[in-house]
Amino acid sequence: MPTLKDVAERAGVTVTTVSRMLNGRVRVSSATQERIRQAMEELGYYPNEMARSLARKNSSFIGLIVPSAQNYFFADLIQHVEAAAEEQGCRLVLCVSNQDRKKEQAYYQMLMSNKVLGVIMASYELNFEELRHSTRLFIAFEESGSVEIPSASTDDFLGGKLAGTHLLDKGCRHLVYLGANAQKNSVSDRRYAGFCAACAERGIAQPLQMDASWDEFIRMQYDATVGEMFRKYPETDGVFASNDILAAGVVQYCRRNRIDVPGRLKIVGYDDTSFASICSMPLTTIHQPVEELAKYAVRCVVNRANGNTIPSSTVFPVHLVERETT
Amino acid sequence: MPTLKDVAERAGVTVTTVSRMLNGRVRVSSATQERIRQAMEELGYYPNEMARSLARKNSSFIGLIVPSAQNYFFADLIQHVEAAAEEQGCRLVLCVSNQDRKKEQAYYQMLMSNKVLGVIMASYELNFEELRHSTRLFIAFEESGSVEIPSASTDDFLGGKLAGTHLLDKGCRHLVYLGANAQKNSVSDRRYAGFCAACAERGIAQPLQMDASWDEFIRMQYDATVGEMFRKYPETDGVFASNDILAAGVVQYCRRNRIDVPGRLKIVGYDDTSFASICSMPLTTIHQPVEELAKYAVRCVVNRANGNTIPSSTVFPVHLVERETT
Repeated sequence: MPTLKDVAERAGVTVTTVSRMLNGRVRVSSATQERIRQAMEELGYYPNEMARSLARKNSSFIGLIVPSAQNYFFADLIQHVEAAAEEQGCRLVLCVSNQDRKKEQAYYQMLMSNKVLGVIMASYELNFEELRHSTRLFIAFEESGSVEIPSASTDDFLGGKLAGTHLLDKGCRHLVYLGANAQKNSVSDRRYAGFCAACAERGIAQPLQMDASWDEFIRMQYDATVGEMFRKYPETDGVFASNDILAAGVVQYCRRNRIDVPGRLKIVGYDDTSFASICSMPLTTIHQPVEELAKYAVRCVVNRANGNTIPSSTVFPVHLVERETT
Repeated sequence: MPTLKDVAERAGVTVTTVSRMLNGRVRVSSATQERIRQAMEELGYYPNEMARSLARKNSSFIGLIVPSAQNYFFADLIQHVEAAAEEQGCRLVLCVSNQDRKKEQAYYQMLMSNKVLGVIMASYELNFEELRHSTRLFIAFEESGSVEIPSASTDDFLGGKLAGTHLLDKGCRHLVYLGANAQKNSVSDRRYAGFCAACAERGIAQPLQMDASWDEFIRMQYDATVGEMFRKYPETDGVFASNDILAAGVVQYCRRNRIDVPGRLKIVGYDDTSFASICSMPLTTIHQPVEELAKYAVRCVVNRANGNTIPSSTVFPVHLVERETT
């Protein structure tokens, strides 16, 4: 592997000059810079980023921990966090936890050991309270429950209320909420609370609730839960599903069982992932501002690493997008 | 931030002892190790991975460059590469090129500068020939065209042939191939060649070919190309689409325009992404062994970094999965 000395020799300058240019601390004439750059290219020499990070005591890496990279919601999040990191001159270390507490913990420690600028967590198995002394943690799409850990989330209660009001406006009276992850975090509960509030305002009976398993969530196959819902509540005429893939699972079930959508049953999804408009029956859904939240989270991580004060909790609004399932 | 000295003081040992334990070169008694570990935990001290990587001249990072993290095929690839890297005790640095040559180049250099174990490229804007001196590059899902750069791809010709034979067996006689990226790489050309070979074997006229743009590929919205196909070739009764999202775009168009699938038109996709079975009309498609290829690529990168010789070119087979669109 070529060394700094090889580069200096080829460019006809001293090692100190090459090192000065790489550190950017002392001015080197642009003609010399060009000669050095050319020598580096010809030799295939890459300056050692790790050594420079070490000198700065910080790398330019940002860690992102997600439960899945395959799930469409998180695929969108990864895309936007990567773009935002790149815009800030940072690199992304992606960690997939499979919603396993031990993996999440190991990833968190690994990222800290690598002196990352910050860690954006969108996987919630750890007890945030225990991590409150971290100055590099940022929680995305959930509230941290601690003023010491900054977070950005979206207005889940509003999302649930918008879905409920929309289904009621369309004439639905037998409503079911399909959650994907109620046991594990409070996101689903807040959506259900908003859904109930919409019904209460109109004097309609509280919607029923059913939950899919984490395994179904990770595999993106909800047949079991959807089938059970239709067996238990055959009179259902409006379904609010807490993610688009679950909503598409309901559409698929209806197609197979010749249930007319939106005539006999209306469906509202959640997230407005790219998937919602691609699947053969485009979904009415609640749009989450994933791109805006991703950009905001990365900016917060960078600002905080630079010693600035950032908001402890930020909530983004959501809105309803009407397509073909209602 | 706590230092090595703070840990040593709290554990009641010398700095040398702590450093010995972290480097793992000299034996430290397990009782002392336990005391040090406890002190580290209490103080929130994370050993500096970067410094240790530097001593080893290699980090344990593997770079993955993809054109998109959002596109379902690449989302699947990312999921499997991350899992395989973690299994090998490595961390994944994810880079999204948006199919931009300059970004791809910048990411490649950044990864080299960070002394990654290896770079797996699934984005193909660079001239591989120029990178043939790299000992850390691995090409996934494309052939490198150079014996010096190892690659793993899948049998695209076979995939095209399987799709063609299946559509002919189902009685289709007016076939169209919808490619997504023919200009940019040879993958699509090989699939088309296989498709043509199936027709030639049965004495059927060569299928027509149309190509979607890269912009459509990245946005996963193929309305323009699909609409044009139906205008130009209204007699089409069989479509082979070079990815599942494009196939789903054809299904969506047919639903809107009341064209019966599979009665009037049969459709075969490519990739067998998770999407193929989730969309409301599950797709007949060609299964690519993404998980197996991801595992293999990571193992190759690690083996090569350890000084072992690895195959220069490996091809995985594909197979057809019949669902509801044929």
